[in-house]
Amino acid sequence: MTKKIKKVVTIGGGNGNSMLLSGLKHYPISLSTIVTMSDDGGSSGVLRKELGVLPPGDVRQCLLALSDTSDTMRNLMKYRFEEGGLKGHNFGNLFLSALEKITGDFSVGVSEAAKILKIRGEVIPVTNANTNLFMLLKNGKLLKGEIKINHNLEIEKKGIGKNYLAPRARANQKAIESILEADLVVIGPGNFYCSIMPNFLVEGISEALRKTKAKVVYNCTLVNKKGHTEKFTLDDYVEKLNEQIGKNRIDFVTFNTRKPGKKLIAKNEKELLVNYSPGQVKKRNYRVIEADLLSDEKVSYSKGDAVAATRTFLLHDSEKLARVLMAILGSKHKESINKIV
Amino acid sequence: MTKKIKKVVTIGGGNGNSMLLSGLKHYPISLSTIVTMSDDGGSSGVLRKELGVLPPGDVRQCLLALSDTSDTMRNLMKYRFEEGGLKGHNFGNLFLSALEKITGDFSVGVSEAAKILKIRGEVIPVTNANTNLFMLLKNGKLLKGEIKINHNLEIEKKGIGKNYLAPRARANQKAIESILEADLVVIGPGNFYCSIMPNFLVEGISEALRKTKAKVVYNCTLVNKKGHTEKFTLDDYVEKLNEQIGKNRIDFVTFNTRKPGKKLIAKNEKELLVNYSPGQVKKRNYRVIEADLLSDEKVSYSKGDAVAATRTFLLHDSEKLARVLMAILGSKHKESINKIV
Repeated sequence: MTKKIKKVVTIGGGNGNSMLLSGLKHYPISLSTIVTMSDDGGSSGVLRKELGVLPPGDVRQCLLALSDTSDTMRNLMKYRFEEGGLKGHNFGNLFLSALEKITGDFSVGVSEAAKILKIRGEVIPVTNANTNLFMLLKNGKLLKGEIKINHNLEIEKKGIGKNYLAPRARANQKAIESILEADLVVIGPGNFYCSIMPNFLVEGISEALRKTKAKVVYNCTLVNKKGHTEKFTLDDYVEKLNEQIGKNRIDFVTFNTRKPGKKLIAKNEKELLVNYSPGQVKKRNYRVIEADLLSDEKVSYSKGDAVAATRTFLLHDSEKLARVLMAILGSKHKESINKIV
Repeated sequence: MTKKIKKVVTIGGGNGNSMLLSGLKHYPISLSTIVTMSDDGGSSGVLRKELGVLPPGDVRQCLLALSDTSDTMRNLMKYRFEEGGLKGHNFGNLFLSALEKITGDFSVGVSEAAKILKIRGEVIPVTNANTNLFMLLKNGKLLKGEIKINHNLEIEKKGIGKNYLAPRARANQKAIESILEADLVVIGPGNFYCSIMPNFLVEGISEALRKTKAKVVYNCTLVNKKGHTEKFTLDDYVEKLNEQIGKNRIDFVTFNTRKPGKKLIAKNEKELLVNYSPGQVKKRNYRVIEADLLSDEKVSYSKGDAVAATRTFLLHDSEKLARVLMAILGSKHKESINKIV
């Protein structure tokens, strides 16, 4: 008898999701990733506006993480033009946009790209709708678009009235099916309001999460985002996610316990490290897995990367994180994962 | 004993050369192509100017002709953006320019592209120098750049004083070697002053042609170019080529004898069909191979193609032409090719 291959689905944006995938892809699992589609900044934003295509940036990063292609092709997909009318455009984004134009459908283009880039697993845009992220603050101010939201530093102070997508966006059928059939769904890490939450605003995703029998993990971010989730504890993230999903659906939370050394952490990031005290909350209906999940790599961002300034410098180690997630996938009960690390 | 595989080298520009290659690639020969590098118009021109890269357009067309890649990849390489800041840019050109940026060398980039596109044979940029085509007319007027020359309609009337490249350009060593080692060198068809002649202005090419023991064929253009070679006969083309090479090096000329039907030919092209009368010249030191070489396909050019207006609508049939060239390659004497068609 052959053992059934387990199905793992990740949900997120470009950077966090691609880190996650590059660790998970080495395991003998069936791997899919659902990718946020409301980016409107940088190269993706220009392509949306000028060519009327869907934002390719997040999908491109996930394709690359799962790709078995040559180093040259990999460098090509990451390359950003630095001069002239092409300045700031990422070659991989142009590749996906041209494929969308040729095939007439972003998802079909992504499948073609997956073949060309020889990817293991499947990259699923959360929706095929050309939609935008909106955030209505409690003071009545409406933030239009992901880039505006990303750069606004008063979100936490003013309070969020409502997050939504407009026009309304229906989930890709494949995204829904992959969640329903999954053994493990992994959410994040990533920019909470710009990379993670937008996925749950797409119609059908939260419902699928409420229905699925999969274990659901949230990879807690390493660093709170200034002006967005500055005062968040681990438990606050889980609460907001469960609220959006409409059910206490988070079963596990991975949490990094290793304190970053001076060389790794930017000065202003230190105070933003996420707080978690086991005793803080009386009874959690999710299990927190504490482990060293920190990468030792120093991050640098490309010169042409328009939103580099908003990116974090502390990253998860993809291999450490994947090891913990595989232990969760293999566990029979929430309580049976003891000393993983 | 195994038969030695024969080496065929073609010399030309993008359109004519790629037609030629797409016919020759089906034969069991070692195939290389030397490609003109002085294009400064359209998408290639913009990339040269803005990114400081070498002109990718002609090379891209030849790579594609020799490629065994998927239909999607093929369509992608041909795709021209039609909107916004990318308007007019061919995706394949961006692909080659990004590869040049990543590898730091156009020729290395072309080799990498050749691998990605799974090409049979070799595509050799005639030079790695960033050079421009100049034409000094007899009235003293200097035409700067290929696009200016291409669009000037008074070249024949005023007469050419001198054709040259500036800065001076040295041939790629590989181009020289491939000519020296060739069994057959095939020149054209193509735009005479803009796609064919520029190759012989690169230092080392004419010398290699004078030295090589290869048979040399010129595929006579179907249509004279208005204002450039309007009054040329077949023999005039050969004379100009031999003059530039510095030796009577053309051994064979292929000439289309089939008159195009009304549906195929544009009104203003009819009078431009090239003249060839066997009795016109007393004794030719080249053999003219007369055959039906005409394609029945109606040509159309992409909307975004900036120089479409200057392109011909009558084309060679790549299979018919390749058959004739293979007969020439296999012949023992100039006289032994009798009824090929």
